Amino acid sequence: MKATRAVSRILSAYEGETPGVKAKLHSILMAGKLGGTGRMIILPVDQGFEHGPARSFAPNPAGYDPHYHYQLAIDAGLNAYAAPLGPLEAGADTFAGAIPTILKVNSANSLLSGTAGKDQAITASVDDALRLGCAAIGFTIYPGSDCSLDMFEEIVEMRREAASVGVATVIWSYPRGEGVTKEGELAIDVGAYAAHMAALLGAHIVKVKLTTDHVMQPEAQKVYKEKGIDVSTLAARVKHVVDSCFGGRRLVVFSGGAAKGADAVFDDARAIRDGGGNGSIIGRNSFQRSREDALEMLGKLIDIYRGKA
Amino acid sequence: MKATRAVSRILSAYEGETPGVKAKLHSILMAGKLGGTGRMIILPVDQGFEHGPARSFAPNPAGYDPHYHYQLAIDAGLNAYAAPLGPLEAGADTFAGAIPTILKVNSANSLLSGTAGKDQAITASVDDALRLGCAAIGFTIYPGSDCSLDMFEEIVEMRREAASVGVATVIWSYPRGEGVTKEGELAIDVGAYAAHMAALLGAHIVKVKLTTDHVMQPEAQKVYKEKGIDVSTLAARVKHVVDSCFGGRRLVVFSGGAAKGADAVFDDARAIRDGGGNGSIIGRNSFQRSREDALEMLGKLIDIYRGKA
Amino acid sequence: MKATRAVSRILSAYEGETPGVKAKLHSILMAGKLGGTGRMIILPVDQGFEHGPARSFAPNPAGYDPHYHYQLAIDAGLNAYAAPLGPLEAGADTFAGAIPTILKVNSANSLLSGTAGKDQAITASVDDALRLGCAAIGFTIYPGSDCSLDMFEEIVEMRREAASVGVATVIWSYPRGEGVTKEGELAIDVGAYAAHMAALLGAHIVKVKLTTDHVMQPEAQKVYKEKGIDVSTLAARVKHVVDSCFGGRRLVVFSGGAAKGADAVFDDARAIRDGGGNGSIIGRNSFQRSREDALEMLGKLIDIYRGKA
Amino acid sequence: MKATRAVSRILSAYEGETPGVKAKLHSILMAGKLGGTGRMIILPVDQGFEHGPARSFAPNPAGYDPHYHYQLAIDAGLNAYAAPLGPLEAGADTFAGAIPTILKVNSANSLLSGTAGKDQAITASVDDALRLGCAAIGFTIYPGSDCSLDMFEEIVEMRREAASVGVATVIWSYPRGEGVTKEGELAIDVGAYAAHMAALLGAHIVKVKLTTDHVMQPEAQKVYKEKGIDVSTLAARVKHVVDSCFGGRRLVVFSGGAAKGADAVFDDARAIRDGGGNGSIIGRNSFQRSREDALEMLGKLIDIYRGKA
Amino acid sequence: MKATRAVSRILSAYEGETPGVKAKLHSILMAGKLGGTGRMIILPVDQGFEHGPARSFAPNPAGYDPHYHYQLAIDAGLNAYAAPLGPLEAGADTFAGAIPTILKVNSANSLLSGTAGKDQAITASVDDALRLGCAAIGFTIYPGSDCSLDMFEEIVEMRREAASVGVATVIWSYPRGEGVTKEGELAIDVGAYAAHMAALLGAHIVKVKLTTDHVMQPEAQKVYKEKGIDVSTLAARVKHVVDSCFGGRRLVVFSGGAAKGADAVFDDARAIRDGGGNGSIIGRNSFQRSREDALEMLGKLIDIYRGKA
Repeated sequence: MKATRAVSRILSAYEGETPGVKAKLHSILMAGKLGGTGRMIILPVDQGFEHGPARSFAPNPAGYDPHYHYQLAIDAGLNAYAAPLGPLEAGADTFAGAIPTILKVNSANSLLSGTAGKDQAITASVDDALRLGCAAIGFTIYPGSDCSLDMFEEIVEMRREAASVGVATVIWSYPRGEGVTKEGELAIDVGAYAAHMAALLGAHIVKVKLTTDHVMQPEAQKVYKEKGIDVSTLAARVKHVVDSCFGGRRLVVFSGGAAKGADAVFDDARAIRDGGGNGSIIGRNSFQRSREDALEMLGKLIDIYRGKA
Repeated sequence: MKATRAVSRILSAYEGETPGVKAKLHSILMAGKLGGTGRMIILPVDQGFEHGPARSFAPNPAGYDPHYHYQLAIDAGLNAYAAPLGPLEAGADTFAGAIPTILKVNSANSLLSGTAGKDQAITASVDDALRLGCAAIGFTIYPGSDCSLDMFEEIVEMRREAASVGVATVIWSYPRGEGVTKEGELAIDVGAYAAHMAALLGAHIVKVKLTTDHVMQPEAQKVYKEKGIDVSTLAARVKHVVDSCFGGRRLVVFSGGAAKGADAVFDDARAIRDGGGNGSIIGRNSFQRSREDALEMLGKLIDIYRGKA
Repeated sequence: MKATRAVSRILSAYEGETPGVKAKLHSILMAGKLGGTGRMIILPVDQGFEHGPARSFAPNPAGYDPHYHYQLAIDAGLNAYAAPLGPLEAGADTFAGAIPTILKVNSANSLLSGTAGKDQAITASVDDALRLGCAAIGFTIYPGSDCSLDMFEEIVEMRREAASVGVATVIWSYPRGEGVTKEGELAIDVGAYAAHMAALLGAHIVKVKLTTDHVMQPEAQKVYKEKGIDVSTLAARVKHVVDSCFGGRRLVVFSGGAAKGADAVFDDARAIRDGGGNGSIIGRNSFQRSREDALEMLGKLIDIYRGKA
Repeated sequence: MKATRAVSRILSAYEGETPGVKAKLHSILMAGKLGGTGRMIILPVDQGFEHGPARSFAPNPAGYDPHYHYQLAIDAGLNAYAAPLGPLEAGADTFAGAIPTILKVNSANSLLSGTAGKDQAITASVDDALRLGCAAIGFTIYPGSDCSLDMFEEIVEMRREAASVGVATVIWSYPRGEGVTKEGELAIDVGAYAAHMAALLGAHIVKVKLTTDHVMQPEAQKVYKEKGIDVSTLAARVKHVVDSCFGGRRLVVFSGGAAKGADAVFDDARAIRDGGGNGSIIGRNSFQRSREDALEMLGKLIDIYRGKA
Repeated sequence: MKATRAVSRILSAYEGETPGVKAKLHSILMAGKLGGTGRMIILPVDQGFEHGPARSFAPNPAGYDPHYHYQLAIDAGLNAYAAPLGPLEAGADTFAGAIPTILKVNSANSLLSGTAGKDQAITASVDDALRLGCAAIGFTIYPGSDCSLDMFEEIVEMRREAASVGVATVIWSYPRGEGVTKEGELAIDVGAYAAHMAALLGAHIVKVKLTTDHVMQPEAQKVYKEKGIDVSTLAARVKHVVDSCFGGRRLVVFSGGAAKGADAVFDDARAIRDGGGNGSIIGRNSFQRSREDALEMLGKLIDIYRGKA
C-alpha cells in the first residue's frame, strides 16, 4: 500500500535508516483502522511476565490463550500486537501476515527481590524476530537505574543488528531505580528526559508513560520555571515530550498504565492527540475487559485519534 | 511412527518452531508405553550432581552405574531419560536409539555455600547434545533468585541454538532465592508464575513442582480471592498451572520430589492427569527403589496415565 | 583540497596511522572558515544526553531540532559537528557532505545515581559512524574514576576498529571520580595528565577542559615547584597541556564549559591560541544563544583564531 | 602398540568420545613400565606455581630445570609428565615423543590474598596443548568454592574444545572454599562428591586426594550410617570414590600430597591398588628427593601396582 | 646478522616457540653495542602513563617529545625501546627499522583511587604491534593483587596471539596488592616467585625488580633458612631469581627504579652481570638526565655488561 502523505512525512525524518526498517515502520503505520493517519494503537501483552499469569489474565480468562490477543488486535483494527517470544511462537503461524507484530526482547518480573537491581533479562533475539516475521523488536530501558548504562549498551547493539536486517526498534523508556524518586518516575522533566534518551539511542518508536506536572531535578526546576515551559495540562506535557524527541522527528506513543475507567482512557487519548503524540499502547485496559467491552473501547479510541470523538 | 491425533494436536501448537524440534518432541511423545497418548513419564538422574553420589545411589547401589538407569527407563517403557554430560557419555553408544535422551545442560550442587547465590553452572552444550544424539536439552531456572535474569539469558541463547539444529528444550522452573520465601517456593501463585515464565522463554516442555494452596504474593492473594481461582485441590492447581502455560498450548510435566511412599506417588499422578498435566518426571522415587519395585511402580503410573488405575 | 603547509605538518606527526584516518583529519582541518590554518572550532551537541532536553534546549527552543545545529555549524563556517547517534540519524541525509561530523559513541546522563560509578554507556558503534558518513568517533574517558580502566579498554578497541576503516578518533578526557577531588577536576597537573593519557591511548584529537593553576597531586606539586613549570596564566597552562601531548605532535582542543558571557569566551580562545592549542569545542555557549548571537560570536572566535582579534 | 585387554576394557567405557581422545588415553595407558596394566603413575610439576620456586625446588635444586623432570619421568618409566605452559615450552622439542605430556591449563598461587576467592587463572589453552604435542590438558576445580560454578563452566568449554581436536582431559577435583570446612576438604563424602562431579563434567581421568573417614555433610552422615557404606580403611574409601565415578567406568588417580616418608607413599599406593584406583600422581614426593632416591621409590611403586610388592 | 654462539644458546631454550618469535628475540639480542653478547639494555618510556607527564619529563623537557627517546636509545646503542601506543605512533615511521621496539600493551596510572584495585588497562593490541613493526609486546602483571588472576589470563591470551604472528612477549612482573606487604614487594622470595610465574606463563623475557634480602612468606622463610639459599648479596639474589626462571633457560632483565646516582646504577648492573642476569631496563635514570649525561652513563653500563668496567 502506498504511503499517505502523513506517513511519508514521518518516514522521511529517519534519514540514516535502511529501506528495510522504513518498510517495517510503513507496515505498522499503514495497518488497521488508523492506517495512513500517522497515529497508531498497539496492543502489548507482556504483563504475564511482569505481574504473573493470574494477575494478568484471571480478570478475563480468555486471555490465557495467546490467540485471543492476536484476534482482539486484528478485530479491533489496531496497528500492531507486541508480546514476548513464547506467545508469538504460539500464534505466529495461524496469524502470519494478519497484523504487524513486535517481539518484546527483554523482560522484567515481580518475583525478583529488591536486592537484584532494576534490570531486565534479554529473553529473545533479532533472529527470533526475523524467524517469527516481526515488524519490530521492543526493548525496555530504565533511565535512573544503576543498571541503565548496561541496558543502553544492550539495546544499542540489538538495534544495530535489527536495523541491519530490516527490523525496526521500539524503546519502552521507563524511569526507575536509584536515581529517581517514586514521584519522579512520572515527573515531566524525567519523562521528557527519558523520551529524549530513547530517541538519542536510535529508537524508531519511543514509548513512554504520561506524566504528572511534577519536576524532579532541582536543576530542571529552575529551567522549567525561568523558561516558562508549559506543563499545566496533559496535552501540554505530551507536546513537551514530543518536542524532546527531536522536535517531533520521532514517533512517540504513550502507555496507559493500570486498568481504569473507560472515560479516563479516552481523556488520555485526547490529550495525546492534542499534544501531537502518535498514539497509545494499551494493554491491561483492553485485554482485562471482556472482548465486547474491549472492542467498543478500542473503537472509540480510534475515533478519537481520527478526530471524531 | 505416524503421530496419533493427540500428539498431532500438541505439536500443532508450536507454531513458530522448526520441523527438527517438532520431530524431537514427536520422538518423546511417541516413545514407550505412553507413546501416542500425549502423556509422558521421564526418568531424570541428575541428583548425583545436586546431592552427591552416596545420598543418591547408596539406597540402591546399582545406580552408581549409568547403564542401570538407561536400562530401567527402557524396561519400564518410559518416554525419555535425562542426565548430565558424564552419564550420557558412559552409555550413549550402548543405548544409541533405544530411548530418547535429554541432556541436562546446567547443574547445581550442595557443596556450594550460602554466599554463592542461587545459581547453576552450564555444564554441557548444544553441541554435546547433538554429538550424543539427544532429543532435548534440559535447563533449570530459579525464578526469584538474584541470578535469575542471567539464567533466563543463558537458556534463551541455548534454546535458540538448540532449536536451530533441531533439538528441543525442557525448562525446569524452580522458584527459589532472595525473592521467594521458603513456603513460597511451593506456593500456587509462584508455581503458576514460574511455569508461565518458562513458557514465555520458549520452553517446549515446562517442568515444575506440584504446589500447595499457599499464595505468596500479596497482590496475587487479592486476585486469587476476587476472581475465585480454584486452588483447593491438587488437580485444580495442576489445571491452573497448565492454564498458565498459554491455556494448555505447552507440554507441562510435574516432578515428584524426595522419595516417598508409592501411594503418594500414585495420588500425585492422578491429580496431574485429572488437572490436564502431561505427565511426571520421577527420579529418586524410581531409582532409589530396587529395580523390581521401581518397575512395578512405574507400570502402575503408566496405567494411571492411561486411565486404567 | 590540497593540504596547506600547516595542515601537512600536523598530519605528518601521525606516523603510524592509515591514509584513511589522515584523510578524515584532513577533511576536518580543511573545512570551514579556519580551513587550512591548523586551528578548528567544533560544535558539540550531546548536552541533551548529559543534562536532559529542557536544560539544554529550552533557552533556545529551535535547538530541539537536530537540523538546527547542522545548519548553525555550516553557516558559521565551523570545522565539524559532533552529536550522538539519534541526532545524526535525523539529519545525515539532508546534510550529507555539507560538514564533517563526529559521532559521539559513549554517553553519560544525569539521571544516574551517585552509587552507579562515574561511567558512560557505549551508545553507538564504528559501523554507525561509517553508515552515517562521519569523519570521526568521539569518546569520553574519566581519568580518576574507578571505571576508568574499563573506559580505556573500550576506547582502545573502538579506536583500533575505527582506524582500520579510516575513521579518526577524538577523546574527551575529563578527570572525575574516586581518585580526583572536586577542585582537582580542573587542576593543571590533572588536566595535563588527562591530556597525556588521551594521547598515549592513541587519540587523534585530544579534547580537554581549560584548567586552573591548582596542582592536586602532592608528588606533582613538588615537581611543578622545583622545575618551575609556568602555570600562572591560562595561555601558559594551555602550553603545558599541549606539551604534554607529545610536545605538540597531537591536535588539542579545549571545551568551553557552561554558558557564560561572550567576553569570557573570547578570552579563553585567545589563551588557547597563544598557548598553542588547536582550537575550541563550543556547545552551550553557541546553541543556547539565539542564532544571530551565536553566528556573531562564532564569527568573532574565528577572527581570534585567525589572529585578527 | 595394540591395547591390552585391560586397556581396551577401560577405553570402551568412554562411549561418547572421539577416536582422537581415545588414542590419547591409549598412549598414556600403554606408556612406561605400567603400560597395558590399566594402572598409571603421573609426575606433576606445577608446585612452583602454587608454592613458589624455592619451596618447590630448593630441596633438590636440579629441579629448577624443567629438563630434569622430563628425564626423571622417562627414566622411571612413568605414564605421563604434567606441567604448566612454560616448562613444557622449555623441553617440548628435546623430549618430543619420549613420554606423554599433560598441559596444566589453569593455575593457583600462594601470593593471592584471602579476599581474592578460591580460584585459579586459565594459563594455557587447547591450542597450546596441540602445538606442544600434549596427550591431555589438566584443569583444577574447587568444589565448595564460591568460584566453583565459573570453574565448572571453564573446564566444560575447554574439555569440549580439547575433545574436538583429539586431546583428553584430566580434572584435578580439590574441595575447598566457602562451602567446605578445613576438615571437610579431606572428608570421604566430600571427596567422593568431588570425584563424582569431575566425572559428571566429562573428565576422562579424575584426579582426587586420598580421604579421611570424616563425613562432613549432615545429610550425608545419615546416609553413610544407615546404608553402612564402608569407609573404615583407606582401600575402602578408594573403592567408594571409584564407585562414585560411574561405578568404575572412569579412570581415577590419587595424589600424594606433601612430601613424606617412602613407607607412607607405598602404603597409599597399596590402598589405591586394592581399592580399585587406577594409580598415583606423585610430585613433591618424587622430585624433592634426590634423583637416585626418586628412581628407587618410583620403581617400588611400579612394583606395587604390578602386584609385586 | 648470524647469531653469535651466546645468542644461539639462549634461543635454543625456547623449544616450543615459532621461528617468528625467535627471529624477534634474535633481533633484540643482536641489536646495539651489546649485540651478540646475550646481554641487553632496554629503554622503557611508559612513566608518563604511570606518573603523569610533568613528573616524568619536566626534569629534562626534551623528553616530552617521543622522538627524543627513540634517538637516545639509538645513539646510546641500546637493544630496544619500549613505549605505549601513542609514542610509538608518533615515531614509528621516522625510526622504522632503526631499533627494535616493544609495545607496552597495558598501563597503570596514578590518578586511580585506592578502591579501584591494583590493575592495569589493556591499552594496545597485538595488531597494533604488527602494524607498528614491533619486536615484542610488553605486559605488566601484579602477583599478589586480587586482580592478578585476570591479568594472568589476559597476558596468556595476548602472548598466544602474539606468538602466532611472530611477536615476542616481555612480562613485567611486579608484586603488589592485597597479598603482599609493602616490604614484601621487594622481598627476595616474592621476587623470585614473581619471576618464576612470569616464566611459567610463557614470557620470552622476564622483567623484575632487584630485590632486598627480606623473605616475606613464613613458609618460605623456613625453606630459605633450612636449605641455605644465599641471598646475602645483590648478585646472589640475582642468581636466585635467574635460577627461578627454569634454571637460566629464560632471559631475565632487571629494572632500575626511581632516579638515583650513577654509581648506584653501575653497582646494580655489576650485580646483575655477576649474578647471571641478562641486563637492565633503565628508564628514569636515563631520560631524566640530560642527553649528554645519559649517553655517558649508558656507555659506561654497556662497558660493565661487556666486562670492561
